Amino acid sequence: MPVLRNEIGDVLRDARLTQGRTLRDISSGARVSLGYLSEVERGQKEASSELLASICEALDVPMSAILREVSDRFETAEALDDVSVMPTIPDTVPELLGEVRAR
Amino acid sequence: MPVLRNEIGDVLRDARLTQGRTLRDISSGARVSLGYLSEVERGQKEASSELLASICEALDVPMSAILREVSDRFETAEALDDVSVMPTIPDTVPELLGEVRAR
Repeated sequence: MPVLRNEIGDVLRDARLTQGRTLRDISSGARVSLGYLSEVERGQKEASSELLASICEALDVPMSAILREVSDRFETAEALDDVSVMPTIPDTVPELLGEVRAR
Repeated sequence: MPVLRNEIGDVLRDARLTQGRTLRDISSGARVSLGYLSEVERGQKEASSELLASICEALDVPMSAILREVSDRFETAEALDDVSVMPTIPDTVPELLGEVRAR
C-alpha cells in the first residue's frame, strides 16, 4: 500500500511539472525553502496542513483537487491490493474435465 | 478556508461515530494512545502518514475514502469562498427603475 506523503509529493510534483514551473518558483511563492519543498515532493518530509495549503496556493491548484488526485491513486492501489488476495488459479484439472477425459 | 488536519480529524471522528465505536477501541486497534487519537480527531495534531494509515485500518475504511470525503469538504468550502468574492448586490436603485418611478 502506498504511503500518503509519497503520493502527496508525487501529485504536487506532477502539478508543478505540468505547469512547467521550477522548484524555485513554487518555493518562493509558498515561502518555503527550495530544499524543504524538494523533500516534500520526494515524500521525505510530511508537509504540515499550513505548508500544503501554501504550496497549493503557489501552484494555483485547489486543495480539493490535490486531495482528489491522491485519493484516486490510493483507490487504484487498493484495487490492485484486493486482486492480490483473490483466490489463485487452481493448478489441478477440474473434476468434470477429468471425467470427460476419462471417457 | 478550512485547515487540512481539522477536516481529516472531523472525517475520522465521523467515521468512528457512524460505526458506534469508542476512542479506546480505535486507539488500541491503531496502536496509538487514546489521548493522541483524540488530539488528531480534534485537529490539534498532524497525523503522520503511517498513523493515518493505522487509524484507517482500525476503522476498516480505505484511505481513499477518507481522502475523498476530505476533498469533498474542501470543495464545498472552496465553492463558498468563491461566492464570497462575487460582486455584492448594489444598494442603489437601478437607473431604469428610477426613471419609471419619476414618470
